Amino acid sequence: MHKLVVLYPQPADPDHFRDYYVTTHLPLVMRMPGLLAWRYSFDVAATQGQTPYFAIFEAEFADAEAMTAARASPQGRQAAADVANYATGGAIVIHYPVQDGIA
Amino acid sequence: MHKLVVLYPQPADPDHFRDYYVTTHLPLVMRMPGLLAWRYSFDVAATQGQTPYFAIFEAEFADAEAMTAARASPQGRQAAADVANYATGGAIVIHYPVQDGIA
Repeated sequence: MHKLVVLYPQPADPDHFRDYYVTTHLPLVMRMPGLLAWRYSFDVAATQGQTPYFAIFEAEFADAEAMTAARASPQGRQAAADVANYATGGAIVIHYPVQDGIA
Repeated sequence: MHKLVVLYPQPADPDHFRDYYVTTHLPLVMRMPGLLAWRYSFDVAATQGQTPYFAIFEAEFADAEAMTAARASPQGRQAAADVANYATGGAIVIHYPVQDGIA
């Protein structure tokens, strides 16, 4: 599995972020080819001190090639271009191959 | 589901980090009560520019109460106390309730 994670610092307008994200951005993301599952949260907290991030999004792809193809697709480009419409605090996008286990 | 995510900036000795993490730290983490699943990666990349994080760890719990109990357990305290033994670049620990979906 290959994961893509988007870390969102605090935006200027949290209410607008939450509303726009659910009603407009997520529907664009869900159209990306090869997207196997996704998760998000607007309730990010830190175990120590202030959280550096306001929201987080995770997406799962079969492998790095599938993620690259999804990002390069018209749907992926449209979703990426939409980020500036709500993420006024910026967005850090990381990705990685997963080592996992069941406890 | 409630997730805990640890973001590790670049450590002073990446080889020591990787070796210690797999041979010593993960076995401690896996003993935490209520841990449903976990994932990690030492191959974190950014889609733009340099990645701010060297490694990432994700853990899943049934809910926030289960995560809190796991962190407060003797096993959780031992795992937390062990972080300083390899995470010389620090560690950002965030957690959140998950909204998810299948694409």
